[in-house]
Amino acid sequence: MEERKVIGWAARDQSGHLSPYSFTLRETGPEDVVFKVLYCGMDHTDLHQIRNEIHSTNYPLVPGHEVVGEVVELGSEVKKFRVGDIIGVGCIVGSCGECFTCKSNIEQYCNNRIFTYNGTYKDGRPTQGGFSSAMVVHQKFVVGIPEKLAPEQAAPLLCAGVTAYSPLKQFNRSDKVVKAGILGLGGVGHLGVLIAKAMGHHVTVISSSDRKRVEALEHLGADAFLVSSNSAEMEQAVSSLDYILDTVPAVHPLQSYLSLLNVDGKLIIVGAVPNPMQFDSVDLILGMPGPLKS
Amino acid sequence: MEERKVIGWAARDQSGHLSPYSFTLRETGPEDVVFKVLYCGMDHTDLHQIRNEIHSTNYPLVPGHEVVGEVVELGSEVKKFRVGDIIGVGCIVGSCGECFTCKSNIEQYCNNRIFTYNGTYKDGRPTQGGFSSAMVVHQKFVVGIPEKLAPEQAAPLLCAGVTAYSPLKQFNRSDKVVKAGILGLGGVGHLGVLIAKAMGHHVTVISSSDRKRVEALEHLGADAFLVSSNSAEMEQAVSSLDYILDTVPAVHPLQSYLSLLNVDGKLIIVGAVPNPMQFDSVDLILGMPGPLKS
Repeated sequence: MEERKVIGWAARDQSGHLSPYSFTLRETGPEDVVFKVLYCGMDHTDLHQIRNEIHSTNYPLVPGHEVVGEVVELGSEVKKFRVGDIIGVGCIVGSCGECFTCKSNIEQYCNNRIFTYNGTYKDGRPTQGGFSSAMVVHQKFVVGIPEKLAPEQAAPLLCAGVTAYSPLKQFNRSDKVVKAGILGLGGVGHLGVLIAKAMGHHVTVISSSDRKRVEALEHLGADAFLVSSNSAEMEQAVSSLDYILDTVPAVHPLQSYLSLLNVDGKLIIVGAVPNPMQFDSVDLILGMPGPLKS
Repeated sequence: MEERKVIGWAARDQSGHLSPYSFTLRETGPEDVVFKVLYCGMDHTDLHQIRNEIHSTNYPLVPGHEVVGEVVELGSEVKKFRVGDIIGVGCIVGSCGECFTCKSNIEQYCNNRIFTYNGTYKDGRPTQGGFSSAMVVHQKFVVGIPEKLAPEQAAPLLCAGVTAYSPLKQFNRSDKVVKAGILGLGGVGHLGVLIAKAMGHHVTVISSSDRKRVEALEHLGADAFLVSSNSAEMEQAVSSLDYILDTVPAVHPLQSYLSLLNVDGKLIIVGAVPNPMQFDSVDLILGMPGPLKS
């Protein structure tokens, strides 16, 4: 079996430009799925990595970790997919398989998980992402895309969607109506609104300006819109939320958002911010609400 | 009924010195308990407040919020105590009584709670703490001290003890043996070890040097001792703990401690640190363990 030549779009340096890049995929192993890429999302982590903002990028780098494709070849032991199936791949393409997290089906926490790109596969090669004509991925890290779901709409669910869904599923087991805050209305944020609404939460979108009010309330169906630069609105909302899904992928002050939380409220930070963020333990512990603080 | 003259030890400025200070207590209201102070603990928040390190101190300030006393007078409606009872008062002496938290018996989260000292009581007077000959406190914020408990040993439980007990009680409902880390072995930390052991946890004390090893293992009964400045020890302990009770009342790097936590692990920060602390969301979210990071 020959190595398969593919063409991807690669970053060669931190300029932010991508250019065509030829490379080969490994031979198809017995548990591998080979697929033609149909669609691939782009999220802010891709931008961070393309520009080396997390200081860990190895160039050339083919980004893309929200990949939807069509199966073109299967390893001899793959039973759960067929050629022609529409499938998806998210952030990781491998893990150790032996640790507690791998055995608990939470491989995303495995200390030896392999990221879809900018990682090193078990054969020593760099992994490359979905901005490519095709990929080869172990079947364990491939999911089927249901027929009812348009493949181009499935792509962003594979990272941004999971990023919003997972913490909401994990942290909110209340029977009461949960008061949700979604901070930031980008890729993860807009999916966060849809998912939180689908879970029955009362959703407030928190944004730095009024610009996205119509999008939030009318297009996405949020229940309320809060402008974080409006101190009167913020003060009125103190202690009103059970959680805030914080999707902002840049350094931002946390204290005023913390003050929006009710007792036992949770600030769920899912944006990968390239620089450290600060919080004030005195405010947290002594519980002085930010905007009301003298 | 006359106002009662008392003598306390007050800070007059941020020098850290206390000197005798005469002041009066309010008249005994129908729900008030008047008591002679027998013992009073001192914890690091007292030091922060005495020195104005949280930038909110009003002088003169009589510190002390781990107060054990003997009842000398009772308001007409107080039924649950008798003169001569040994009682205790902790961090707060009042709250609004009407909000959700007050009605849920978690007055410590009331936005209008009144701190035992450096607060303003409902009559407009400054509150003063337990470094005083006597205090008058509403019965709702007075607890009985059981006879079996030596009053001098009860005092530090009223803040330091509760500070360790409350999060351990709240966050650990596992049936399995919980792997605990106690960071810092001061007032809260040493009670944390005793309480976590009493809850059946496997307790590792984390300290910056070897100096407190014997105290931790032999006197307090901890199961393990980890020196945070020893990078080999720290690396070996990566992902080994279910929670860390972080009792350090000064700015300290969080990243290397976060890497000690297992999946779903909790860093419980209970030290009031006068300056903001930093964390790195990229490390948290992408899950790169600190000491192992390239």
